[in-house]
Amino acid sequence: MPRPPNPDVRRRLLEAGLNLVHTRGFAASGVKDITDAAGVPKGSFYAYFPSKEALSAAILEHYWSDIEARLLPILEADGSAQERITRFFHALADEHEAGDFLLGCLIGNLSLELGGFSEPARAELVRILDRWNEALTACLRSGQGDAGGIRADLDAVELAALLVEAWEGAALRGKVTRSRVPYDRLEAVTIPALLR
Amino acid sequence: MPRPPNPDVRRRLLEAGLNLVHTRGFAASGVKDITDAAGVPKGSFYAYFPSKEALSAAILEHYWSDIEARLLPILEADGSAQERITRFFHALADEHEAGDFLLGCLIGNLSLELGGFSEPARAELVRILDRWNEALTACLRSGQGDAGGIRADLDAVELAALLVEAWEGAALRGKVTRSRVPYDRLEAVTIPALLR
Repeated sequence: MPRPPNPDVRRRLLEAGLNLVHTRGFAASGVKDITDAAGVPKGSFYAYFPSKEALSAAILEHYWSDIEARLLPILEADGSAQERITRFFHALADEHEAGDFLLGCLIGNLSLELGGFSEPARAELVRILDRWNEALTACLRSGQGDAGGIRADLDAVELAALLVEAWEGAALRGKVTRSRVPYDRLEAVTIPALLR
Repeated sequence: MPRPPNPDVRRRLLEAGLNLVHTRGFAASGVKDITDAAGVPKGSFYAYFPSKEALSAAILEHYWSDIEARLLPILEADGSAQERITRFFHALADEHEAGDFLLGCLIGNLSLELGGFSEPARAELVRILDRWNEALTACLRSGQGDAGGIRADLDAVELAALLVEAWEGAALRGKVTRSRVPYDRLEAVTIPALLR
């Protein structure tokens, strides 16, 4: 009789998978690498995830939930909309710097590695990008009112999308050049140029 | 006695490798997949490339040389600097659309897949990003003069870097959403907002 699923094993697989996929990429992380890192038998993987692709979607959800819980509240905190947005991206950049810029943004990494052919990953990425856009849009709208400082000639939805795209492009160059320069440029040049 | 290297075999390996790596990613493309697609024996791969990583750098060089030859001249053609830059990115977007947005930009894909750990790929990516920046910088500088239309309060080098980053971010979302919307937004919103 199969043993009932163990939430602790699932969590260990998720964390080991996230760590490996973020470091090496999806295709380079085998199921056995993940179960070894999680300290569980290889056979137990499929009791928790129907496929490695299903794990990729779960990893993305786990990664994003953490950002959502810890960092999205910055967008609703004190200060002008531009200040909040700058602080949010600054906090994300600090996390990339803590990993010596070797990992980049998992959302960006898997967008480019899996966006072209993995439907479970792609569906989760669409959901995350939408959720991210919504949070930035709400912040931008709050700054588009009287003297809020955010330009009102462009739709907040469009501006939010541009910010995410500029962030992903900065993280991409940051990973290649192993440098904070593109992240600093996003803060100092792109955000002011786009929002005012 | 080993046969002398055959430039035609090298070219076939490069083209088959580019095609596979662009479609599936680097880790998911095995040496045997590449030699099969090129129609050459697996053993001959290492007569042309010391490693799959060395092939990744050669693939990037091949991909970029083609863009450089066909599309960079747009940046030196007729029209205002902003018109030339818009036409250049429009032409790149047309190529992504021709592949149903499934492939994305190979430079972006390999930046995120290999930038963190493959030194040969990373060195080639740094060279390509620098060269791309230089071409855009020259175009922007030509438009920063009297009535050239490009803002002069920001360094052309910075603006060039931002454009590449905005492009890569747009291509990333375009791949996930399988849509031209982010590319169109780059043209209609980001380029004017950043350059004027």
